[in-house]
Amino acid sequence: MTFDLVIHNGTILTVNSDFEIIENGIIGINDGKIALLTALDEDASPPTAKDTIDASGGIIMPGLINTHTHLPMTLFRGLADDLPLDVWLNETIFPAENTHINSETVRWGTLLACAEMVISGTTTCCDGYFLENDVAAAVNDFGIRAVLGQGVIDYPAPGVPDPAENVEAAKTYVKKWKDISATIRPSIFCHTPYTCSEETLKKAKHASKELGVLFQIHAAETKNEMDQFLFEHQLTPIHYLDKLGILDQNTLLVHCVWLNEADMEIIAARRSNVSHNPESNMKLASGISPLSKLATFDIAIGLGTDGCASNNNLDLFQEMDTAAKLHKASTLDPTVMDARRILQMATIDAAKAIGLEDVIGSLETAKQSDIVFVDTNKPHLVPMYHPESHIVYSANGSDVRDVMVAGNILVRNGKLLAMDVDEIIDRVNEIAAAIKGS
Amino acid sequence: MTFDLVIHNGTILTVNSDFEIIENGIIGINDGKIALLTALDEDASPPTAKDTIDASGGIIMPGLINTHTHLPMTLFRGLADDLPLDVWLNETIFPAENTHINSETVRWGTLLACAEMVISGTTTCCDGYFLENDVAAAVNDFGIRAVLGQGVIDYPAPGVPDPAENVEAAKTYVKKWKDISATIRPSIFCHTPYTCSEETLKKAKHASKELGVLFQIHAAETKNEMDQFLFEHQLTPIHYLDKLGILDQNTLLVHCVWLNEADMEIIAARRSNVSHNPESNMKLASGISPLSKLATFDIAIGLGTDGCASNNNLDLFQEMDTAAKLHKASTLDPTVMDARRILQMATIDAAKAIGLEDVIGSLETAKQSDIVFVDTNKPHLVPMYHPESHIVYSANGSDVRDVMVAGNILVRNGKLLAMDVDEIIDRVNEIAAAIKGS
Repeated sequence: MTFDLVIHNGTILTVNSDFEIIENGIIGINDGKIALLTALDEDASPPTAKDTIDASGGIIMPGLINTHTHLPMTLFRGLADDLPLDVWLNETIFPAENTHINSETVRWGTLLACAEMVISGTTTCCDGYFLENDVAAAVNDFGIRAVLGQGVIDYPAPGVPDPAENVEAAKTYVKKWKDISATIRPSIFCHTPYTCSEETLKKAKHASKELGVLFQIHAAETKNEMDQFLFEHQLTPIHYLDKLGILDQNTLLVHCVWLNEADMEIIAARRSNVSHNPESNMKLASGISPLSKLATFDIAIGLGTDGCASNNNLDLFQEMDTAAKLHKASTLDPTVMDARRILQMATIDAAKAIGLEDVIGSLETAKQSDIVFVDTNKPHLVPMYHPESHIVYSANGSDVRDVMVAGNILVRNGKLLAMDVDEIIDRVNEIAAAIKGS
Repeated sequence: MTFDLVIHNGTILTVNSDFEIIENGIIGINDGKIALLTALDEDASPPTAKDTIDASGGIIMPGLINTHTHLPMTLFRGLADDLPLDVWLNETIFPAENTHINSETVRWGTLLACAEMVISGTTTCCDGYFLENDVAAAVNDFGIRAVLGQGVIDYPAPGVPDPAENVEAAKTYVKKWKDISATIRPSIFCHTPYTCSEETLKKAKHASKELGVLFQIHAAETKNEMDQFLFEHQLTPIHYLDKLGILDQNTLLVHCVWLNEADMEIIAARRSNVSHNPESNMKLASGISPLSKLATFDIAIGLGTDGCASNNNLDLFQEMDTAAKLHKASTLDPTVMDARRILQMATIDAAKAIGLEDVIGSLETAKQSDIVFVDTNKPHLVPMYHPESHIVYSANGSDVRDVMVAGNILVRNGKLLAMDVDEIIDRVNEIAAAIKGS
């Protein structure tokens, strides 16, 4: 049998249900899917293929999945840091969005995010922003996999000046993107339980159900939000959303920093999913989520970076490292959130959280070939006793050498093949010069 | 005037007392020192030099200073993670040290650490380990700058089988290395207040004073340590050390996770210094230090990674990012530990903490030319509004392109010139194979 592509000479971190690690593994790819995955006998040669990648003794792993992004916000990377949340939003981010966010800037900001993600080993993201039709066009042109949510908020927003039209605009977007691309899935993203009315939340969830797409919402992010809901509704934000019928298996709750045990039970009972964004929660001083407790429930929890204006990058390797360490410190227990569980949260559990577990998230035959190769022949990755430890605690996004999505090689030998990275950087620098000047 | 070396075409983050940032800056170097540092007029050419580095529009900054390492522990990187501290130490690290630590393995582990540090932009470290004479020989051969402390502990240790000899062995080591090398300063490192007796602590501090070297000690790292000292001595660890006369301006207190306000006042009054190691404190679940409170005192606080067995790398860029974010989350205040203060903790404040502020830590004329160049022409470093934000929140060690120490270029275009990196990796892999097999 001849394959389209064979990867050999590496340690395969399958992240399958047995967390199998295959030394001297080979992967054969046909039609963008994994057709063969096994160990190579010591003296055997790899099977023939039209193209071959020699992993040089490094780590072959599933492409990472970022369950929470606002892709165009790369344009605001480091524009303002270390500020109180209301000052940061009201005096920097919202004015910058009002002045500088349009179809053209969204496109270049999104392409920059795609370049950054794929170069650092992320092959799928789950996004929410305004003008998501432009985001989707850019992501589709670039060639990474994504769930892309049109933002719904009860305020005038880029592309939706009249908030009364917000859910309709989202429906139109979803219908347009429902079956265009094998790698793009549309979604609806309600901003928060406090910036969307009960009616908007219900309408948006109803539309998501009707159209069969993922419903996303920022929820339980800050203490202020928790206090506000307890004061106004005598309910936690999660309990409030549940009363409105928002929580089901196609809902992704983003952040979940302020949860009590009853909230966790509700999320589990409804089979809803959680996106955990530790670096953004730390940088914005939202707090430290009770992740190690939440992780004892049967809930799919995926890692996310959030928009890189509050991070300030999209590197999931660093996010894994932070997630693994933060909850040890906050609980004084070094055994919680171990390397294996954290790697699952950036791969298979993230796939579950966004409804793609049958397609991606682990290296197994018949799954899509979204694969990353990590070069471990570097001082900071030597010696190697346990590959999953290196991925979580020692590596960073710059250690990724080759990346493919659905069988297409988007990065090879560290070089972006998907698009002209210099053009993207130049265009974003032009947009940033205007933002700087305003 | 002709220089030995000129660096031009970059943004200089001086980290001087005004935190001056110079766009289109030039640095001229003679005899290993900064002889010229200024902005280049728009149409002017850089001055003539025997060698020139074009910084390609990136960031030129002081070499980073790691105030706490155990260099040879690179050999145990990722050997065991996610374990309770006593299991990790007693069942993995101590047995591995007893069996595998000798002059030869210490040399190769140290060289690997030097390679990892310098490639990721660290030009100076402050270390403590056993067989420090071998550590010093390796660091000196490699060519980075270091303060290197011989470990003192009241148990048999590699190189010092009889604990009664521990302080004498440290004195012999210090005398040997006192004036050998322009870039190596010897030091004495007492392990902890609970693994060294009162007598040992006093003798070691007395020897440090007599010989005029830095005294280092792990202190107030864990809640257990705090509880033990309160129970046995009715004193905090810091108060206990102060009563023994250990605290003065030449003492570096490593960790300081468990401090009360009186401890902070004592440290400030004695003009002692602190090494803050957030990632190690998180990974080992020691806790979250009250850093933002400590930072309001007039105390020199430097960042450190700790040994990379508990981190698991020596990347100070990631440590800066974690330090900046962790204390925002733990205090729910996004304004604490801002990017500028954190960068100072990895440069000038770190230099102060280890007694080298007249030599390194900022880019200023007459200081040593320990300089790092960061390549910002990468998707995750675009756009750039504030260079210090990028260094702390967006960059990682792999973004470093060129590094020099005392005017010697150790890394150029990302390639290690100091030594043969492949030989170091091969030798460490051989040692690791033995560790794995045992």
